[in-house]
Amino acid sequence: MNVALPTLLLVEDDPNDVMLFRRAMDKSKMANPLQLAKDGEEAVAYLSGEGLYADRNTYPLPAIMLLDLKLPRKSGLEVLEWLRDQPGINRLPVVVMTSSKESTDVGRAYDLGANSYLVKPVSFETLLEMVKVLGLYWFILNEKPDISLRTME
Amino acid sequence: MNVALPTLLLVEDDPNDVMLFRRAMDKSKMANPLQLAKDGEEAVAYLSGEGLYADRNTYPLPAIMLLDLKLPRKSGLEVLEWLRDQPGINRLPVVVMTSSKESTDVGRAYDLGANSYLVKPVSFETLLEMVKVLGLYWFILNEKPDISLRTME
Repeated sequence: MNVALPTLLLVEDDPNDVMLFRRAMDKSKMANPLQLAKDGEEAVAYLSGEGLYADRNTYPLPAIMLLDLKLPRKSGLEVLEWLRDQPGINRLPVVVMTSSKESTDVGRAYDLGANSYLVKPVSFETLLEMVKVLGLYWFILNEKPDISLRTME
Repeated sequence: MNVALPTLLLVEDDPNDVMLFRRAMDKSKMANPLQLAKDGEEAVAYLSGEGLYADRNTYPLPAIMLLDLKLPRKSGLEVLEWLRDQPGINRLPVVVMTSSKESTDVGRAYDLGANSYLVKPVSFETLLEMVKVLGLYWFILNEKPDISLRTME
Protein backbone atom coordinates (compact mmCIF):
# COMPACT_ATOMS: atom_id res chain seq x y z
CA MET A 1 0.00 0.00 0.00
CA ASN A 2 1.09 3.47 -0.83
CA VAL A 3 0.85 5.80 2.14
CA ALA A 4 1.71 8.91 0.15
CA LEU A 5 -0.78 11.77 0.12
CA PRO A 6 -3.38 11.51 -2.63
CA THR A 7 -2.52 13.22 -5.90
CA LEU A 8 -4.35 16.10 -7.54
CA LEU A 9 -4.42 16.23 -11.33
CA LEU A 10 -4.78 19.76 -12.68
CA VAL A 11 -5.80 20.00 -16.32
CA GLU A 12 -5.01 23.57 -17.34
CA ASP A 13 -3.41 25.07 -20.42
CA ASP A 14 -2.67 28.54 -19.05
CA PRO A 15 0.79 28.57 -17.37
CA ASN A 16 -0.17 31.66 -15.41
CA ASP A 17 -3.21 29.92 -13.89
CA VAL A 18 -1.04 26.89 -13.06
CA MET A 19 1.48 29.13 -11.32
CA LEU A 20 -1.23 30.89 -9.31
CA PHE A 21 -2.80 27.57 -8.34
CA ARG A 22 0.56 26.22 -7.19
CA ARG A 23 1.17 29.32 -5.14
CA ALA A 24 -2.27 29.04 -3.54
CA MET A 25 -1.55 25.38 -2.67
CA ASP A 26 1.77 26.36 -1.08
CA LYS A 27 0.23 29.20 0.88
CA SER A 28 -2.57 27.00 2.17
CA LYS A 29 -0.04 24.27 3.10
CA MET A 30 -1.70 21.71 0.86
CA ALA A 31 1.10 19.19 0.54
CA ASN A 32 -0.64 16.83 -1.87
CA PRO A 33 1.38 16.07 -5.00
CA LEU A 34 0.19 18.10 -7.98
CA GLN A 35 0.33 16.61 -11.46
CA LEU A 36 -0.35 18.62 -14.58
CA ALA A 37 -1.89 18.01 -17.96
CA LYS A 38 -1.82 20.99 -20.30
CA ASP A 39 -4.53 19.89 -22.71
CA GLY A 40 -7.36 17.38 -23.04
CA GLU A 41 -5.30 14.77 -24.90
CA GLU A 42 -2.65 14.84 -22.20
CA ALA A 43 -5.31 14.39 -19.52
CA VAL A 44 -6.64 11.31 -21.32
CA ALA A 45 -3.11 9.94 -21.78
CA TYR A 46 -2.38 10.49 -18.08
CA LEU A 47 -5.58 8.86 -16.87
CA SER A 48 -5.30 5.88 -19.17
CA GLY A 49 -1.62 5.37 -18.35
CA GLU A 50 -0.34 5.73 -21.90
CA GLY A 51 3.37 5.99 -22.71
CA LEU A 52 5.40 7.51 -19.90
CA TYR A 53 2.26 7.68 -17.74
CA ALA A 54 2.34 3.88 -17.45
CA ASP A 55 4.75 4.41 -14.56
CA ARG A 56 2.25 4.86 -11.73
CA ASN A 57 4.97 5.50 -9.16
CA THR A 58 5.87 8.69 -10.96
CA TYR A 59 2.38 9.43 -12.29
CA PRO A 60 -0.09 8.04 -9.74
CA LEU A 61 -3.78 7.92 -10.48
CA PRO A 62 -5.22 11.08 -8.95
CA ALA A 63 -7.78 11.17 -6.14
CA ILE A 64 -9.36 14.14 -7.82
CA MET A 65 -9.14 15.98 -11.14
CA LEU A 66 -9.50 19.72 -11.53
CA LEU A 67 -10.58 20.30 -15.09
CA ASP A 68 -10.54 23.45 -17.16
CA LEU A 69 -13.11 23.49 -19.98
CA LYS A 70 -11.45 25.47 -22.76
CA LEU A 71 -8.47 23.32 -23.61
CA PRO A 72 -6.45 22.68 -26.76
CA ARG A 73 -6.82 19.40 -28.72
CA LYS A 74 -9.66 18.01 -26.61
CA SER A 75 -12.04 20.10 -24.50
CA GLY A 76 -12.68 19.56 -20.82
CA LEU A 77 -16.21 18.38 -21.56
CA GLU A 78 -14.84 15.79 -24.00
CA VAL A 79 -12.39 14.57 -21.37
CA LEU A 80 -15.24 14.29 -18.87
CA GLU A 81 -17.48 12.42 -21.29
CA TRP A 82 -14.64 10.03 -22.11
CA LEU A 83 -13.78 9.46 -18.43
CA ARG A 84 -17.30 8.55 -17.32
CA ASP A 85 -17.18 5.71 -19.83
CA GLN A 86 -13.92 4.17 -18.60
CA PRO A 87 -14.36 1.16 -16.31
CA GLY A 88 -12.18 1.37 -13.21
CA ILE A 89 -11.62 5.12 -13.28
CA ASN A 90 -15.11 6.31 -14.23
CA ARG A 91 -15.88 7.26 -10.61
CA LEU A 92 -12.98 9.68 -10.28
CA PRO A 93 -14.31 12.91 -8.75
CA VAL A 94 -14.03 15.77 -11.25
CA VAL A 95 -14.24 19.40 -10.27
CA VAL A 96 -14.58 21.73 -13.22
CA MET A 97 -12.56 24.92 -12.74
CA THR A 98 -13.03 27.40 -15.51
CA SER A 99 -13.54 31.06 -16.28
CA SER A 100 -16.92 30.39 -17.91
CA LYS A 101 -19.98 31.13 -15.84
CA GLU A 102 -22.35 30.46 -18.73
CA SER A 103 -25.29 28.35 -17.67
CA THR A 104 -25.01 26.14 -20.78
CA ASP A 105 -21.45 25.19 -19.75
CA VAL A 106 -22.53 24.64 -16.14
CA GLY A 107 -25.50 22.50 -17.12
CA ARG A 108 -23.58 20.50 -19.70
CA ALA A 109 -20.78 19.80 -17.21
CA TYR A 110 -23.25 18.45 -14.64
CA ASP A 111 -25.03 16.44 -17.31
CA LEU A 112 -21.74 14.81 -18.27
CA GLY A 113 -21.04 13.90 -14.66
CA ALA A 114 -19.00 16.73 -13.14
CA ASN A 115 -19.05 16.44 -9.36
CA SER A 116 -18.78 20.17 -8.88
CA TYR A 117 -18.27 23.36 -10.88
CA LEU A 118 -16.07 26.23 -9.78
CA VAL A 119 -15.49 29.56 -11.48
CA LYS A 120 -11.87 30.79 -11.39
CA PRO A 121 -11.71 33.77 -9.08
CA VAL A 122 -10.25 37.01 -10.40
CA SER A 123 -8.22 37.92 -7.31
CA PHE A 124 -5.48 35.81 -5.78
CA GLU A 125 -6.93 36.24 -2.29
CA THR A 126 -10.20 34.67 -3.41
CA LEU A 127 -8.35 31.89 -5.20
CA LEU A 128 -6.45 31.19 -1.99
CA GLU A 129 -9.68 30.88 -0.02
CA MET A 130 -11.10 28.62 -2.72
CA VAL A 131 -8.07 26.32 -2.71
CA LYS A 132 -8.16 26.03 1.08
CA VAL A 133 -11.82 25.01 1.15
CA LEU A 134 -11.38 22.80 -1.92
CA GLY A 135 -8.51 20.94 -0.25
CA LEU A 136 -10.39 20.50 3.02
CA TYR A 137 -13.52 19.36 1.27
CA TRP A 138 -12.15 16.87 -1.26
CA PHE A 139 -9.08 15.58 0.55
CA ILE A 140 -10.23 15.58 4.17
CA LEU A 141 -14.02 15.34 4.22
CA ASN A 142 -15.00 13.53 1.06
CA GLU A 143 -14.92 9.74 0.96
CA LYS A 144 -13.04 8.75 -2.17
CA PRO A 145 -14.21 5.94 -4.43
CA ASP A 146 -11.85 3.08 -5.18
CA ILE A 147 -10.33 3.66 -8.55
CA SER A 148 -7.91 1.52 -10.46
CA LEU A 149 -6.85 0.90 -13.99
CA ARG A 150 -7.84 -2.35 -15.59
CA THR A 151 -4.50 -2.37 -17.38
CA MET A 152 -2.76 -2.51 -14.01
CA GLU A 153 -4.40 -5.76 -12.94
CA MET B 1 -36.96 36.25 -8.82
CA ASN B 2 -36.59 34.91 -5.34
CA VAL B 3 -33.69 36.48 -3.50
CA ALA B 4 -33.95 34.17 -0.49
CA LEU B 5 -30.97 32.05 0.46
CA PRO B 6 -30.84 28.70 -1.31
CA THR B 7 -32.52 25.82 0.49
CA LEU B 8 -30.87 22.66 1.78
CA LEU B 9 -32.91 19.47 1.73
CA LEU B 10 -31.83 16.97 4.38
CA VAL B 11 -33.09 13.43 3.91
CA GLU B 12 -32.60 11.74 7.26
CA ASP B 13 -34.75 9.40 9.31
CA ASP B 14 -32.92 9.69 12.63
CA PRO B 15 -34.35 12.62 14.65
CA ASN B 16 -31.18 12.76 16.71
CA ASP B 17 -29.01 13.23 13.60
CA VAL B 18 -31.40 15.93 12.37
CA MET B 19 -31.15 17.73 15.69
CA LEU B 20 -27.34 17.58 15.67
CA PHE B 21 -27.21 18.80 12.07
CA ARG B 22 -29.49 21.74 12.91
CA ARG B 23 -27.34 22.63 15.87
CA ALA B 24 -24.20 22.50 13.72
CA MET B 25 -25.86 24.79 11.15
CA ASP B 26 -26.81 27.25 13.88
CA LYS B 27 -23.34 27.20 15.41
CA SER B 28 -21.69 27.78 12.05
CA LYS B 29 -24.13 30.61 11.26
CA MET B 30 -25.42 28.89 8.16
CA ALA B 31 -28.67 30.74 7.65
CA ASN B 32 -29.90 28.76 4.64
CA PRO B 33 -33.41 27.35 5.06
CA LEU B 34 -33.35 23.67 5.98
CA GLN B 35 -36.09 21.37 4.73
CA LEU B 36 -36.49 17.80 5.90
CA ALA B 37 -37.60 14.53 4.42
CA LYS B 38 -37.62 11.62 6.84
CA ASP B 39 -37.63 8.77 4.35
CA GLY B 40 -36.99 8.10 0.67
CA GLU B 41 -40.63 8.37 -0.39
CA GLU B 42 -40.90 11.76 1.26
CA ALA B 43 -37.76 12.94 -0.55
CA VAL B 44 -39.26 11.89 -3.89
CA ALA B 45 -42.57 13.59 -3.04
CA TYR B 46 -40.73 16.79 -2.05
CA LEU B 47 -38.58 16.88 -5.17
CA SER B 48 -41.42 16.13 -7.54
CA GLY B 49 -43.73 18.64 -5.85
CA GLU B 50 -46.46 16.18 -4.93
CA GLY B 51 -49.34 17.10 -2.65
CA LEU B 52 -48.48 19.82 -0.16
CA TYR B 53 -45.01 20.11 -1.74
CA ALA B 54 -46.61 21.67 -4.81
CA ASP B 55 -46.41 24.98 -2.94
CA ARG B 56 -42.87 26.02 -3.88
CA ASN B 57 -43.00 29.15 -1.75
CA THR B 58 -43.20 26.99 1.34
CA TYR B 59 -41.22 24.06 -0.05
CA PRO B 60 -38.71 25.52 -2.53
CA LEU B 61 -36.63 23.28 -4.73
CA PRO B 62 -33.35 22.82 -2.89
CA ALA B 63 -29.96 23.94 -4.19
CA ILE B 64 -28.46 20.83 -2.67
CA MET B 65 -29.68 17.58 -1.14
CA LEU B 66 -27.95 15.81 1.73
CA LEU B 67 -28.96 12.19 1.48
CA ASP B 68 -28.73 9.42 4.04
CA LEU B 69 -28.53 5.92 2.54
CA LYS B 70 -30.36 3.71 5.02
CA LEU B 71 -33.87 5.09 4.91
CA PRO B 72 -37.33 3.63 5.43
CA ARG B 73 -39.66 2.97 2.47
CA LYS B 74 -37.14 3.90 -0.22
CA SER B 75 -33.36 3.84 0.22
CA GLY B 76 -31.08 6.77 -0.48
CA LEU B 77 -29.61 4.96 -3.48
CA GLU B 78 -33.09 4.45 -4.91
CA VAL B 79 -33.86 8.14 -4.46
CA LEU B 80 -30.59 9.01 -6.22
CA GLU B 81 -31.28 6.65 -9.11
CA TRP B 82 -34.77 8.08 -9.49
CA LEU B 83 -33.53 11.68 -9.35
CA ARG B 84 -30.91 11.31 -12.07
CA ASP B 85 -33.67 10.27 -14.42
CA GLN B 86 -35.93 13.28 -13.80
CA PRO B 87 -35.70 16.00 -16.46
CA GLY B 88 -35.35 19.47 -14.96
CA ILE B 89 -34.08 18.39 -11.55
CA ASN B 90 -31.68 15.62 -12.58
CA ARG B 91 -28.67 17.92 -12.12
CA LEU B 92 -29.39 18.70 -8.48
CA PRO B 93 -26.14 18.26 -6.52
CA VAL B 94 -26.46 15.34 -4.09
CA VAL B 95 -24.11 14.82 -1.18
CA VAL B 96 -24.49 11.43 0.46
CA MET B 97 -24.16 11.66 4.25
CA THR B 98 -24.29 8.32 5.94
CA SER B 99 -22.72 6.21 8.63
CA SER B 100 -21.62 3.56 6.13
CA LYS B 101 -17.99 3.63 5.07
CA GLU B 102 -18.30 0.41 3.09
CA SER B 103 -16.62 0.67 -0.27
CA THR B 104 -19.57 -1.01 -2.02
CA ASP B 105 -21.88 1.76 -0.78
CA VAL B 106 -19.36 4.44 -1.71
CA GLY B 107 -18.82 2.99 -5.19
CA ARG B 108 -22.51 2.44 -5.83
CA ALA B 109 -23.34 6.00 -4.76
CA TYR B 110 -20.80 7.46 -7.19
CA ASP B 111 -22.01 5.13 -9.94
CA LEU B 112 -25.55 6.38 -9.44
CA GLY B 113 -24.40 9.98 -9.69
CA ALA B 114 -23.67 11.20 -6.16
CA ASN B 115 -21.61 14.39 -6.32
CA SER B 116 -19.85 13.63 -3.06
CA TYR B 117 -19.91 11.13 -0.21
CA LEU B 118 -19.49 12.07 3.43
CA VAL B 119 -19.34 9.79 6.45
CA LYS B 120 -21.23 11.08 9.50
CA PRO B 121 -18.69 12.04 12.14
CA VAL B 122 -18.96 10.52 15.58
CA SER B 123 -18.21 13.67 17.57
CA PHE B 124 -20.19 16.89 17.42
CA GLU B 125 -17.01 18.95 17.06
CA THR B 126 -16.10 17.08 13.88
CA LEU B 127 -19.66 17.41 12.59
CA LEU B 128 -19.47 21.14 13.18
CA GLU B 129 -16.25 21.40 11.15
CA MET B 130 -17.84 19.32 8.41
CA VAL B 131 -20.97 21.47 8.23
CA LYS B 132 -18.88 24.66 8.05
CA VAL B 133 -16.78 23.40 5.14
CA LEU B 134 -19.82 21.84 3.47
CA GLY B 135 -21.69 25.14 3.62
CA LEU B 136 -18.74 27.14 2.30
CA TYR B 137 -18.10 24.66 -0.46
CA TRP B 138 -21.60 24.05 -1.83
CA PHE B 139 -23.28 27.37 -1.09
CA ILE B 140 -20.45 29.82 -1.62
CA LEU B 141 -17.91 28.25 -3.98
CA ASN B 142 -19.85 25.83 -6.11
CA GLU B 143 -21.66 27.06 -9.19
CA LYS B 144 -25.18 25.68 -9.05
CA PRO B 145 -26.91 24.22 -12.07
CA ASP B 146 -30.26 25.64 -13.13
CA ILE B 147 -32.96 23.36 -11.88
CA SER B 148 -36.67 23.62 -12.35
CA LEU B 149 -39.67 21.40 -12.38
CA ARG B 150 -41.33 20.75 -15.70
CA THR B 151 -44.67 20.76 -13.92
CA MET B 152 -44.05 24.37 -12.92
CA GLU B 153 -43.80 25.64 -16.48
